[in-house]
Amino acid sequence: MREKIQSLRKQIDVLNINILELLSERAEVAERIGEAQTTLGLSHYDPAREQEMLEAIVAANKGPFDEPTVKSLFKQIFQASMQLEDDHDKKKYLTSRTLDHEDTVVRVGDVHIGSNHSPVLIAGPCALESREQVLLTAEYVASKGVTLFRGGAFKPRTDPYSFQGLGEGGLRLGREACDQYGLKFVTEIMDPRDIGMFIEYVDVLQIGARNMQNFMLLKAVGNTDKPVILKRGLSATIEEWVMAAEYLLSAGNPNIILCERGIRTFEKYTRNTLDVSAVALAKLETHLPVLVDVVHSGGRRDLLVALTKAGLAVGADGIMIEVHPNPEVALSDNKQQIDFDTFDRYLEETGYHKKLSIKRHEVYGF
Amino acid sequence: MREKIQSLRKQIDVLNINILELLSERAEVAERIGEAQTTLGLSHYDPAREQEMLEAIVAANKGPFDEPTVKSLFKQIFQASMQLEDDHDKKKYLTSRTLDHEDTVVRVGDVHIGSNHSPVLIAGPCALESREQVLLTAEYVASKGVTLFRGGAFKPRTDPYSFQGLGEGGLRLGREACDQYGLKFVTEIMDPRDIGMFIEYVDVLQIGARNMQNFMLLKAVGNTDKPVILKRGLSATIEEWVMAAEYLLSAGNPNIILCERGIRTFEKYTRNTLDVSAVALAKLETHLPVLVDVVHSGGRRDLLVALTKAGLAVGADGIMIEVHPNPEVALSDNKQQIDFDTFDRYLEETGYHKKLSIKRHEVYGF
Amino acid sequence: MREKIQSLRKQIDVLNINILELLSERAEVAERIGEAQTTLGLSHYDPAREQEMLEAIVAANKGPFDEPTVKSLFKQIFQASMQLEDDHDKKKYLTSRTLDHEDTVVRVGDVHIGSNHSPVLIAGPCALESREQVLLTAEYVASKGVTLFRGGAFKPRTDPYSFQGLGEGGLRLGREACDQYGLKFVTEIMDPRDIGMFIEYVDVLQIGARNMQNFMLLKAVGNTDKPVILKRGLSATIEEWVMAAEYLLSAGNPNIILCERGIRTFEKYTRNTLDVSAVALAKLETHLPVLVDVVHSGGRRDLLVALTKAGLAVGADGIMIEVHPNPEVALSDNKQQIDFDTFDRYLEETGYHKKLSIKRHEVYGF
Amino acid sequence: MREKIQSLRKQIDVLNINILELLSERAEVAERIGEAQTTLGLSHYDPAREQEMLEAIVAANKGPFDEPTVKSLFKQIFQASMQLEDDHDKKKYLTSRTLDHEDTVVRVGDVHIGSNHSPVLIAGPCALESREQVLLTAEYVASKGVTLFRGGAFKPRTDPYSFQGLGEGGLRLGREACDQYGLKFVTEIMDPRDIGMFIEYVDVLQIGARNMQNFMLLKAVGNTDKPVILKRGLSATIEEWVMAAEYLLSAGNPNIILCERGIRTFEKYTRNTLDVSAVALAKLETHLPVLVDVVHSGGRRDLLVALTKAGLAVGADGIMIEVHPNPEVALSDNKQQIDFDTFDRYLEETGYHKKLSIKRHEVYGF
Repeated sequence: MREKIQSLRKQIDVLNINILELLSERAEVAERIGEAQTTLGLSHYDPAREQEMLEAIVAANKGPFDEPTVKSLFKQIFQASMQLEDDHDKKKYLTSRTLDHEDTVVRVGDVHIGSNHSPVLIAGPCALESREQVLLTAEYVASKGVTLFRGGAFKPRTDPYSFQGLGEGGLRLGREACDQYGLKFVTEIMDPRDIGMFIEYVDVLQIGARNMQNFMLLKAVGNTDKPVILKRGLSATIEEWVMAAEYLLSAGNPNIILCERGIRTFEKYTRNTLDVSAVALAKLETHLPVLVDVVHSGGRRDLLVALTKAGLAVGADGIMIEVHPNPEVALSDNKQQIDFDTFDRYLEETGYHKKLSIKRHEVYGF
Repeated sequence: MREKIQSLRKQIDVLNINILELLSERAEVAERIGEAQTTLGLSHYDPAREQEMLEAIVAANKGPFDEPTVKSLFKQIFQASMQLEDDHDKKKYLTSRTLDHEDTVVRVGDVHIGSNHSPVLIAGPCALESREQVLLTAEYVASKGVTLFRGGAFKPRTDPYSFQGLGEGGLRLGREACDQYGLKFVTEIMDPRDIGMFIEYVDVLQIGARNMQNFMLLKAVGNTDKPVILKRGLSATIEEWVMAAEYLLSAGNPNIILCERGIRTFEKYTRNTLDVSAVALAKLETHLPVLVDVVHSGGRRDLLVALTKAGLAVGADGIMIEVHPNPEVALSDNKQQIDFDTFDRYLEETGYHKKLSIKRHEVYGF
Repeated sequence: MREKIQSLRKQIDVLNINILELLSERAEVAERIGEAQTTLGLSHYDPAREQEMLEAIVAANKGPFDEPTVKSLFKQIFQASMQLEDDHDKKKYLTSRTLDHEDTVVRVGDVHIGSNHSPVLIAGPCALESREQVLLTAEYVASKGVTLFRGGAFKPRTDPYSFQGLGEGGLRLGREACDQYGLKFVTEIMDPRDIGMFIEYVDVLQIGARNMQNFMLLKAVGNTDKPVILKRGLSATIEEWVMAAEYLLSAGNPNIILCERGIRTFEKYTRNTLDVSAVALAKLETHLPVLVDVVHSGGRRDLLVALTKAGLAVGADGIMIEVHPNPEVALSDNKQQIDFDTFDRYLEETGYHKKLSIKRHEVYGF
Repeated sequence: MREKIQSLRKQIDVLNINILELLSERAEVAERIGEAQTTLGLSHYDPAREQEMLEAIVAANKGPFDEPTVKSLFKQIFQASMQLEDDHDKKKYLTSRTLDHEDTVVRVGDVHIGSNHSPVLIAGPCALESREQVLLTAEYVASKGVTLFRGGAFKPRTDPYSFQGLGEGGLRLGREACDQYGLKFVTEIMDPRDIGMFIEYVDVLQIGARNMQNFMLLKAVGNTDKPVILKRGLSATIEEWVMAAEYLLSAGNPNIILCERGIRTFEKYTRNTLDVSAVALAKLETHLPVLVDVVHSGGRRDLLVALTKAGLAVGADGIMIEVHPNPEVALSDNKQQIDFDTFDRYLEETGYHKKLSIKRHEVYGF
C-alpha cells in the first residue's frame, strides 16, 4: 500500500511540472494581451471576457472537481496573470515601497520628517481659543525646542452646538504666533472650498480621521504641494489608509505623512486602541513618514509617555501631542491636553529633551 | 447590633431628605442664573467658574470622602443643574423624540417615507454605468412598483485607480431614466461644491457612510430643503449618527432620513454586521424615518431576504437594495447586486410584492 | 491591434482547457492516494510532502510568475485536491447542512425545538436566588404557556466577590420548581467535573458564551446525550461557533441547539450587538436549531420586543428571556430582567401569546 | 444683570458647602452601619434597602429636578458611601497597586520575572510534536541564554479534527527536554481535572486566551502555588482581565503573571491587534508582571521585532515567542513560528542577546 502511494506520488510530481509549464505559457500570452490593451488605452480587467472564459471552462469540466472549485482555481489563475500584466505596466501604487525604495523625507522649511532624521514633536493646543492662549503656548513649546506647532481653527465636533473653532481668525492667530516664535503651523482642513485660504496661512495641512475617506478633499489637497498629515480613520484598515494616501500622491502631491491615532475597539479604559502594528506595517509597506498621535490613541494623560515610547520603538518619525496653558478650562479635549509643567516632565521621561536637538540615527542606529 | 443598624438607618433617612432639600434649593438658584445668562447671550457652561467652585468645596472638605469622590459627586450635581438650565431654554436637540412627538414623514413628490406609511423600497444599480444599463434597470424596477431609483454617479472608491463613476453625465442619465419611468432619483453627493448641480438633477441626496462626519458637507446639504438619506458611518456610534442628523436639522433641513448599513466588526463571513438595535433605537429616540441598506450590511446575496425581514420587523421605514441587469460584469459590488430574476424572487420572499401597493398599518398594525 | 488580442485570446482558451485537463487528472491521482492513506489510517495532510512538492515546482519555475505566486497557485491546487480527498471519505463536518439536509429537531420531553415547530420561549430569572423567587417565577411563566424554565445555579461573574450562585442547592430548587409546574429545566454548566450532578437535575445543559471554546467542557458535554444550548462567544466568529458545535456532535451528542447572544463591538448604547446575520447564516449552513438570547444581546429592557421580532423574522427557533418577580432587587442583571407585568406585555407585543400554543408553519409559512 | 448673576453665585457657594456637610455626615453614619454589618457577616449592599430609600426620597421630591435625576444623584451618593464602607473593611482587590505598592516578582527557580529584573524571553515551539523536535528546540534556545521553554501538549484547536497535541506524552517530553538543558517548562492547562498531572511535570502553568473566563479552571489553578501566566482573552476588556487575575489571587496563588496577546478588531493585515495601552495600564493599575506574546498579537513573522520593541518600550517584563526547527512543516501556527536562524536575527535586532544576561535597570533605568 505504501509503495502504491509512492508510485502515485511520482505521477503527481510529473503532473505538477506539466501544470506549471502550461500556467507559465498562459501567463506569457496574457502579458502580451496586456501590452496590447495598454497600447489601446484599455483596462486589463474585462469582467465580460472573464465570465466567458469561466463558462467555457465549466462546460468542459468532467470532474472530479465540482464547478465552484474549478471556478475558484481559475479565478486565482486569472488574478495572478493580471497582476503580472499590471506589474509589466509599472503601474504600481505610488505609496508602495517596492517602487521607490528610498524613504520619503518631507521638508517643512528646514524641518525634515522621515527616513533617518530625528523624530519630530508636533505640539500645541487642541483648539486655538484666544490670542493669549495661542501666543503663550507657542512661546512655551518653541522654548523647549519644538519646531512644529499644532492647533485647530476649524473644529466641528460631534455635537453641532459645541464650540466649532475660531475659523479664519484662528488661522490668522496661528500664523502670527508661528511667525513670532519661529514655528511651522500645522492645522486641519475640512472643506475643499477652503484650500486657497489655508495655503495662505498654513505650513502643513492636516486631514483628520473623520475625513480620511473624504475623497473630494483628498483630491483637492492632492492638487497642492503643501505637506500633508493624513490621519488614519477611526476604523480604517491599514489598506484603506494607504489607499487614501495614494489619492494624495496620485493627484500630484508627494509630501505626504501618515499618522496613526488609535482605532475603535470594544476596550473601555482607553478612548481608542493605539495600533503599533499599523505603524510598523506602514513603514514596511510604504516609503512615507509615519507619526503617532498619542493624545487621541489613548485619550488619557497617564498613557502619553508609554505610547510615545511604543511609537518611537516601532520606528515612528514623530509624535503629535496637545499642550494647553490650562487644560481644565479648555474648550475641548479637557482630559487629554497637558499643561506646561506636565509637558516638561513628558519631554524628560520620553527622552525627547535630547532627541529634539539631534539626528535620528544617533538615537536609534537605524 | 441589628437594632443599632435600624437606628442609624433612621438617621440616614432624615439626612437623605435634608440633602434633597438643599439640592432642590441649589437647582432653583441655578435656574435663575441660567435665565440671566440666556438674556445676556452667555453660555450656561463656564468651566472656569466650575473649577473655582470645585476648589472651594475641596478646601472645605474634612472627610470622610476623599477629594476625587467629592469632586465627582459635585460634578454630577453641577451637570444635573445645567441640564435643568438647558431644558428651561427648550434648547433640546431637534432630532429628539421628546421635543417633537410626531413621526416625521418625508415627502418625495407623492412618495411618503416614515410614520405609518407602507415601507418603501429603493432599488437600482450600485453605479450608473451606461445609458442602456440605467434605462433597462429603471424600467424594470418601475414595472415592479418601485418608486425610488438609486444609482451612483460619483463613485470614488478605496482605490483611486478603480472606476470613479460617470460624474455629471451619470446625473443626467439618472434624471432621464427617472423622468421616463415615473421614478424619484436618489444619488450620493460627496462634495459641498456640487450642491447646485445635484439640486438640478436629483430628488433625494444621499450622504454616504464615509462622509457621515464630513461636517462641511452636512452643513451645505442642511442649507437646502432636499430630502436627504444619511447613512450611518462604518463605525459610528448611534449617538454620533444622530448628532450628524442634528447638523442637518439645525442647518434648516427637516427632510432627513436615517439609514443603517451595517457596522465594522471582527466577523468575517459578512462584510459588515447589520445592527438591528440601532434601527430600533433610532426609531425610539428620534422622530425621523429609518431605512436599512441590506446590501452593504451583509455583503452577501444570500442574506438579502433575511436582513430585509429583520429590518422590517424592527420597524424600518424602507429598504435599500442594488439591482443590475448583469451583476457579473458590474463595475463595482459584483457580489452583492442582484439580477432581475433574483429581484422578482426577493420581492416574493420578503412579501414586498404586496407591501409596495398598500399602507404600512395594513401590514404591521403599527 | 484588436485582432491581435482576439488571436491571443484564442490561445488562452486552448490553454485553459489543457490546464483543466491536467488539474482533473492530478485530482484523480490525489483521490487514489487519499483512499490508500485512509486504509492505512494516515492523515491526508502531510506538510513535509507538500513542502517537498513546492520545492520541486519552484526549482522548475522559469517565469514569468515569481516564486511566491507559483507557490500560492499550487497551494490552492493542493488544497482543492485535499478537499476532494476529504469529501471522498465523507468526513464532512457533522454540523454541515450539506451532509444532512433535514433540519435537526431537538426533543426535550414533549417540547420540540427546530425545523417547522413553533418557536419556543425559554424564560426564568438570571440567577436562582431563593426558594420563593424560583417557585413564584416558575409558576408564573408556566401559567403563560412557557415550557422551558431557565435559571443559573452556578454564576461565577467577572468579579470574584460578586454573588456566585446557590450551587447544587440551586439545581435542586430548579428541579423542584420544574417538577411542580410541568416545566423543563435549562441551566448553565461550567465545569466538566460537574457533569454527573447536572445530569441528575437538569433537562437542558447550557454552555455559556465565556466557555464556548472551553474544549474540555465541550468534550465532556458531548459525551452525554442531554440537549445542549451552545451560546456564541462574546467575539467568536460564526465559523468558530459552528466548530464548537462540531466538538459536541463529533463527541457523540446530536442534540445541539445554537444560541446567538450578541457580539462585542464599539457601540455604547447597547451592551452587545445582536448579529441577525449570524442567525441566518447558522440556519443556512447548519441543520441545527438556533435561538436568540434577547437579554444579553441588547442589555436593555426597551429592546426586548424589537430584538425578539428581528430574531423570529430571520428564522430563529426560539427566544431566551429573563423574568424575575422583582428585578430591582435581583442579585444580577438588574437592568435586563423584566417583572411579571412587563412579561405579559412582552408576550402580547411580540405575538408570543399566540405562538406558544400553535405550530411554526401556521405562523410563518416556512 | 451681571451683578444679579454674581449675587446668585454667592448663594450657590453657600449651598455647596452646606450640601458637602450633610454628605459628609451621611457618609459617617453609613460607615458605622457598614462596621455593624461586617460584624454580623452581612453584605454592605442591600438592594431592598436602597429601593426603599429611593422611594422615600422620590416621594419627598417637589422639584425642580425630575424623578430620574433625583434617583440618579442619590444612587451616586449611595455608591460613594458604600465604596467608603468597603475601603473601611480593607476588602480591596488583591491585584490592585493601591493595596500593595511593591511590584510582585514571580520566581521560577532562579528566574525572576517582574519589577526591575531584566525582561525574560519565553521561547519554544507552538506545539510539542515529537521527541526530536522538542529536544532540538530546547537545546537551541538554551544555548542562546533562554531560561523558559514553552510548548503545548494539550492543543485543542478551533476545528475538532485538527491536531490536538500529544497530551501527557507531550508533558513528559517537555519535562525531559527542560531537565536536560536546564530550562523551566511553561505549558498550557485546559482542564481542572488535569491539575495533579500538570503539577508533576510543569514549572509554569499557562491559562490560554480562550479560557481567561473559565472560572472553574481559574479557581482550580488558584488553589496551587505554581506560577501562572494568564493570557488576556480575545476580546476581554482590561478590567475583565485583571478580574480574572483576581480570581487566581483570591483563591490563594500569589504567583500570577499577566500576558497581553492582541485583541480582536476589524483590521485584516494582522491576526490580532497588539494593545500596548493594556500593557501600560496593567503595569499602572496592578503590581503583577506583564508579558507580551508577540506571536499571536500580530500573527506575522515580519512584525516580531517591532512588537517586541514596542512591548519592552512600554515596560513589559518579558516576551513570548515561538521557535521551531522547521516552521514550514509545523502542525500548527505555520506562519508565525520562526526557525533557528531567524531566531538569531531576532535576538540581535531586538537587543535581546544583551538583555538575556543583564538586569533590567541596567537596560532601561526603571
